[in-house]
Amino acid sequence: MISLNDVRKLWRGGKRVKTFDDIFDKVRERKRKIALVGAEDLEGIKAVNEAATAGIADALLIGDEKKVSDNLKKLGIKGKFEIVHASSATSASETGVKLVSSGKADILMKGLVKTSILLKAVLNPDWGLRSGKLLSHLVIAEAKDYDRFIGITDGGMIIRPTLEQKVEIIKNAVGFFHKMGNDNPKVACIAAVEVVNSSMPETVEAAQLATMWKRKQITNCVVDGPLGFDNALDPRAARIKKVTGEVAGHADILLVPDIHSGNFIGKSMDYCAHYTIGGIVLGAKAPIVIISRADKAKAKLASISLGALAIEREDKK
Amino acid sequence: MISLNDVRKLWRGGKRVKTFDDIFDKVRERKRKIALVGAEDLEGIKAVNEAATAGIADALLIGDEKKVSDNLKKLGIKGKFEIVHASSATSASETGVKLVSSGKADILMKGLVKTSILLKAVLNPDWGLRSGKLLSHLVIAEAKDYDRFIGITDGGMIIRPTLEQKVEIIKNAVGFFHKMGNDNPKVACIAAVEVVNSSMPETVEAAQLATMWKRKQITNCVVDGPLGFDNALDPRAARIKKVTGEVAGHADILLVPDIHSGNFIGKSMDYCAHYTIGGIVLGAKAPIVIISRADKAKAKLASISLGALAIEREDKK
Repeated sequence: MISLNDVRKLWRGGKRVKTFDDIFDKVRERKRKIALVGAEDLEGIKAVNEAATAGIADALLIGDEKKVSDNLKKLGIKGKFEIVHASSATSASETGVKLVSSGKADILMKGLVKTSILLKAVLNPDWGLRSGKLLSHLVIAEAKDYDRFIGITDGGMIIRPTLEQKVEIIKNAVGFFHKMGNDNPKVACIAAVEVVNSSMPETVEAAQLATMWKRKQITNCVVDGPLGFDNALDPRAARIKKVTGEVAGHADILLVPDIHSGNFIGKSMDYCAHYTIGGIVLGAKAPIVIISRADKAKAKLASISLGALAIEREDKK
Repeated sequence: MISLNDVRKLWRGGKRVKTFDDIFDKVRERKRKIALVGAEDLEGIKAVNEAATAGIADALLIGDEKKVSDNLKKLGIKGKFEIVHASSATSASETGVKLVSSGKADILMKGLVKTSILLKAVLNPDWGLRSGKLLSHLVIAEAKDYDRFIGITDGGMIIRPTLEQKVEIIKNAVGFFHKMGNDNPKVACIAAVEVVNSSMPETVEAAQLATMWKRKQITNCVVDGPLGFDNALDPRAARIKKVTGEVAGHADILLVPDIHSGNFIGKSMDYCAHYTIGGIVLGAKAPIVIISRADKAKAKLASISLGALAIEREDKK
């Protein structure tokens, strides 16, 4: 008998993506449209221009028409993108969100506006992008040492998640891994140690999450914890420490205790391991891309491509 | 006028060490002695044997005489090390600590005993190794991308340090960097963001530590924070994010908010960036080396050499 998962797999025609080049190939020429909010930002325009040149996504530039136009001139790409005038950060945010919620754009991207202002518009109950889910941040690292993508969540949005929020964070990340063709991602709830230690609530909650998975409160993935960073990723470390289970040594997603620890892992994978890194905000009706000025060019392109991939499969549902 | 620091520098004859090979050279043939507590541990014996072969340190093996002797036979090095019999983990820990506090050994090293049992002996008020300082853990990473050692503290000992404990943790790490020939190490108190955010107490405490340094409550180093992981280490990231100051882009020591975040950085630098990593417990009268079974051979040697270096300069004081 063919299982529901098999049917889904066939129907999706999905091959698991393993590198950002795979993702670029997958999302190329789908004519996805970015709403760049706060397009007075030269770096933001550069990034969407690269994405357009690579055929990954087109863009609407939302911001002060004169300034945006000057930026386009500066880059020698006047006329390449449509400009939507907005005279303030609040107005740009509202316009961008409305363009996405009305289907005129697919991906919301932060330019020169404060994240808080953009998110306020996202969460507007009337015309915003609320889906009832928690908004959470997922970093995707092309981990060349482990021959797979590693997700790190949440190192960008929820400062110190509760147990319930951790469940939501896992669900958002798992949903995204499904879109990358991984129908049963392995989630490691990591901590400094791989044993339950009552003076470390992070390890207690990791164990609780593993039990919730066993009781099918979390599905379409495998969850285990507490695991250490090393024995989550590396089979040798798991073997030596005698940490068993499906996830140990093979984790796809690292659920971290808080924003700081998750942020440090992502940054270390970027600045020390030189993995290519992308980031995306999940949980809204449309993907939200928030890139940092300090991101490398490929990281910006990677984040935009994650945005394009996040909506890719929605069409078919 | 020659400053006190200049005098110290001359007197120490100290050149800053930049790689573990430099440290190996520095500590070689000093005839330092390790007290390996719980020497029934084959991996522990292998590590001290490597250190002895490399001329870094000799060892006393403390544990069940029969089992330790069998291990030596198994490795073909019978007679190479002196065995001190102890029939239990508690007795081995007490014996090891007493050997160090009486000066018969220099470095206390954990073998097959629980850390908690070993530390109980270390903290004994009568014959232990208390110095009045807080015990804290320091990871030293040979960060090939940044042409210097990066210290990460505390990712191994204090679960969630208070502000006062963070000051002690900084002092311990700074003292160790002085021993590496770096007389004015740059300490970055890192967090997910480089701005003070009242909903992230980690950023508030980072700012407080920076002020304590300005007011000379912390000396012989430079402290700044909050800084991000990226703009602490990388001058480009600091420049783009317009984070200024002496520490930004040039941090030697990363002070982390808690044990989990510090542990993840160390593990990521090991398992993803492939930096050579060593670890050491500071704050006792003698260095304490706690290696993990999953540590790579060079990491074990690195940790022992940090132990040997930690006592190196004490002689001259």
